[in-house]
Amino acid sequence: MAGDRAQQILDFLELADRFKFVERRGYVTGGERRENDAEHTWHMALVALLLHGEIENRADVDLGKALSMILVHDLVEIEAGDTYAYDDAAIEGQDEREQAAADKIFGTLPEDLGKRFRALWEEFEARQTPEARFAKACDNFQGFMQNAISGGRAWRENGVGKEDTRRRTDFPRGVDPVFDALITRLYERTDREGSFG
Amino acid sequence: MAGDRAQQILDFLELADRFKFVERRGYVTGGERRENDAEHTWHMALVALLLHGEIENRADVDLGKALSMILVHDLVEIEAGDTYAYDDAAIEGQDEREQAAADKIFGTLPEDLGKRFRALWEEFEARQTPEARFAKACDNFQGFMQNAISGGRAWRENGVGKEDTRRRTDFPRGVDPVFDALITRLYERTDREGSFG
Repeated sequence: MAGDRAQQILDFLELADRFKFVERRGYVTGGERRENDAEHTWHMALVALLLHGEIENRADVDLGKALSMILVHDLVEIEAGDTYAYDDAAIEGQDEREQAAADKIFGTLPEDLGKRFRALWEEFEARQTPEARFAKACDNFQGFMQNAISGGRAWRENGVGKEDTRRRTDFPRGVDPVFDALITRLYERTDREGSFG
Repeated sequence: MAGDRAQQILDFLELADRFKFVERRGYVTGGERRENDAEHTWHMALVALLLHGEIENRADVDLGKALSMILVHDLVEIEAGDTYAYDDAAIEGQDEREQAAADKIFGTLPEDLGKRFRALWEEFEARQTPEARFAKACDNFQGFMQNAISGGRAWRENGVGKEDTRRRTDFPRGVDPVFDALITRLYERTDREGSFG
């Protein structure tokens, strides 16, 4: 491996350490602190690994590709920060912020790797391919579940009601019945525990 | 999906949240806190995604399988805790502790999923297949790199000298020249910065 290429890869992996400092709104269980992007991404990848064999179109979803997308899906937030799913004002400028961040983050990689990572991110964002739809369903599902298992603290802090959470649950429920089954159970729990804002 | 199966999957995903609380010895960059297992696993998976196309036997390494192994490789630490790579006394009982933890953790899943996760973990631990060797190389590499990019604080706190770190660097260097190239550069840096204990 050429020295420049090795150094660019090392620099990228060091930059990626900042992902562990990007805070999300949702809390870890126990509520002592918020979850960060690296934790969210690992948990979401675990969801994908567990559910891949359960979905109806599993033959059309390449697991390696779906996991690859998941690993890079939020990397732009190292520059752009996390945009809260229920913050309409922040969502307004999100696309522009994230495109600029993608130029910067993926631009630090050797050109071929940068193009590959950016293509994975863009495919994820477009939600068209079977892998992208599955990965996005895992993303929304993990975000909803994380709030449900942490007693809805972030929902109450931000005045997010049950109807509002359909922003995160309608899409995965439409992707496959397995997400519907899991989300239905989580809503039973959040209703019982009074978790909404 | 049967209700019991759905509930077991949800319970496992909630249990998995504890992975975010398993502290490793190494620090995040800046040194304000230690890295946790979820962060380590995500970072290691990113290493695998970046390096898969660079290794000589990439045609023999199924990326989806390698990433699956990576996602589950440390899950037993939810029960067994992290064993420091340079703590010989702790390493002594590690295997027994982790086998018991595997029974407990993977035993909470529906039987077919539990068997699959355990098989991935055992394949990883055995380091025999191309995917397991690549995944383990990514594991050792990430641990070494994390210390190198955080100024060697954990090495100095624990009296770990340069020769000791060969425990983590000899294996990946033997797996593929790309790991050798990256580790050589990291040693140049740690020598320059005086990072060892």
